[in-house]
Amino acid sequence: MEAPLLYTVDLFGTAIFAVSGVLLAGRLKMDPFGVIVLASVTAIGGGTIRDLSLGATPVFWIKDTTYIWVILVTCLLTMLVVRRPKRIAWWVLPVCDAIGLAAFVGIGVEKSLIYQSSGLIAIIMGVITGCGGGIIRDVLAREVPMVLRSEVYATACIIGGAFQTSALSFGFSRSEAFLSCVISVLVIRLAAIRWHLSLPTFAIHK
Amino acid sequence: MEAPLLYTVDLFGTAIFAVSGVLLAGRLKMDPFGVIVLASVTAIGGGTIRDLSLGATPVFWIKDTTYIWVILVTCLLTMLVVRRPKRIAWWVLPVCDAIGLAAFVGIGVEKSLIYQSSGLIAIIMGVITGCGGGIIRDVLAREVPMVLRSEVYATACIIGGAFQTSALSFGFSRSEAFLSCVISVLVIRLAAIRWHLSLPTFAIHK
Amino acid sequence: MEAPLLYTVDLFGTAIFAVSGVLLAGRLKMDPFGVIVLASVTAIGGGTIRDLSLGATPVFWIKDTTYIWVILVTCLLTMLVVRRPKRIAWWVLPVCDAIGLAAFVGIGVEKSLIYQSSGLIAIIMGVITGCGGGIIRDVLAREVPMVLRSEVYATACIIGGAFQTSALSFGFSRSEAFLSCVISVLVIRLAAIRWHLSLPTFAIHK
Repeated sequence: MEAPLLYTVDLFGTAIFAVSGVLLAGRLKMDPFGVIVLASVTAIGGGTIRDLSLGATPVFWIKDTTYIWVILVTCLLTMLVVRRPKRIAWWVLPVCDAIGLAAFVGIGVEKSLIYQSSGLIAIIMGVITGCGGGIIRDVLAREVPMVLRSEVYATACIIGGAFQTSALSFGFSRSEAFLSCVISVLVIRLAAIRWHLSLPTFAIHK
Repeated sequence: MEAPLLYTVDLFGTAIFAVSGVLLAGRLKMDPFGVIVLASVTAIGGGTIRDLSLGATPVFWIKDTTYIWVILVTCLLTMLVVRRPKRIAWWVLPVCDAIGLAAFVGIGVEKSLIYQSSGLIAIIMGVITGCGGGIIRDVLAREVPMVLRSEVYATACIIGGAFQTSALSFGFSRSEAFLSCVISVLVIRLAAIRWHLSLPTFAIHK
Repeated sequence: MEAPLLYTVDLFGTAIFAVSGVLLAGRLKMDPFGVIVLASVTAIGGGTIRDLSLGATPVFWIKDTTYIWVILVTCLLTMLVVRRPKRIAWWVLPVCDAIGLAAFVGIGVEKSLIYQSSGLIAIIMGVITGCGGGIIRDVLAREVPMVLRSEVYATACIIGGAFQTSALSFGFSRSEAFLSCVISVLVIRLAAIRWHLSLPTFAIHK
């Protein structure tokens, strides 16, 4: 996978995560700038926590403001177009989200390895990049974060990150390793969406 | 605007934001140190996120502990004095808050430009400095953050930041640019408080 | 106190804080990876905020992944063993938590002083290291953070940190200062648990 394609997928992921923030803001009846804030934390929150933890400051969206512009344009378009989310087929958003998630995990692992992290830390950074934004979004909207409860979401990130770091340690190229991550996250998420898969939950009865 | 005056306004903003944290802690019946924690995150939370994102570490309140002392004294005085908030005229706190907000936005923009940020990032840092603390305060108190929903709060920050960065790019001095930000945030917030202005909200009906 | 013993106590604190995350995740019926996320933020959240604020990046668990392994093993064991928390005597967890807390506060103060902080900042870093993780855990679980309300929790951290920094400034060795912090936090917390001590709360009636 070449760098320009990777960058494009990253921006696509940013846009689709922003859309999920806009939709939640709409349900909470926020004003336009509340919408932008919620879209932004969803789209760049995970990568921001990753960069802060690695010490990669200033964080990525300060170095390259393209991410911010993508979010602003996405907010504008979504608010203009999506007045009736019912008209969108139910699977469109989850599938787009799966594509964005797959890209984010792979990018998190990649970036982490640039900073000489171990494989374990690389997987964790992939999970943070993929899940962090959604967790902050849900906290701001006063919900127990969806990704902690449902449909093998964090699980898909962990497995994808494990594939990518394993592939690298077996001598595959960075592009091949990245691709193995994207494909495994996508397959797991799409299967989970299609058949409503989830792991058994851990429940304590008081 | 000269540096000592700017610093004074900054400390005034810190104190008034701390008061808003104390009042919320009082409604939640927290113990004295819970009160200090809530006051602190409100007063220095936004600036902390700004400094972390810019890579300006250690963060400002570690470099200059005056901010912490202002918060501690404010907490003590507020807990001693404000047992009956009803006696305070309703407009006192919002007006003080508007003054603090105006100072915080201008300071966020200024500090961001010192770190060579673009105009867009400077505006974002102004918004984060002004709104970040209040958002963390509301999350800890389990409320959907007020600033995302009401009365052109984030909007005032964005417009103030835009004035300041525009003024700088048109060749005005840093003091004049700072003043243009403070005045525009103040005017917008005071007008919003006086006439209960708000932007139309973006609502999605499921 | 020698370094290996300190490190052991730190890892013990990490494990016991992870257990408290697992138990909350179990009450919220999270899936296994949600459990790991909640255990992790509880165990390393406070230290992460401390390291970020000090500019000590990459954060400690990236530099030494032992902390992560301790959390993973703790999660596995807890999920296998603790199906029936009722069988555990009620005081076991709070007492373990008090030991972990005492270690975390002392370590936060120590680490802060390595970065040339003042005594005030060192105390604050002790409080953040001890209380930060529990606050994030409660926010993710949608509760008003317990430590802001109950049984002299933050208070114990402040007093412990004050003992440690005072001891250092009176010329005691680092080990003695650390020990004075651990003992004071332990005594206060155990007394608070035994006799249900709490500070008078600050309440505002609207």
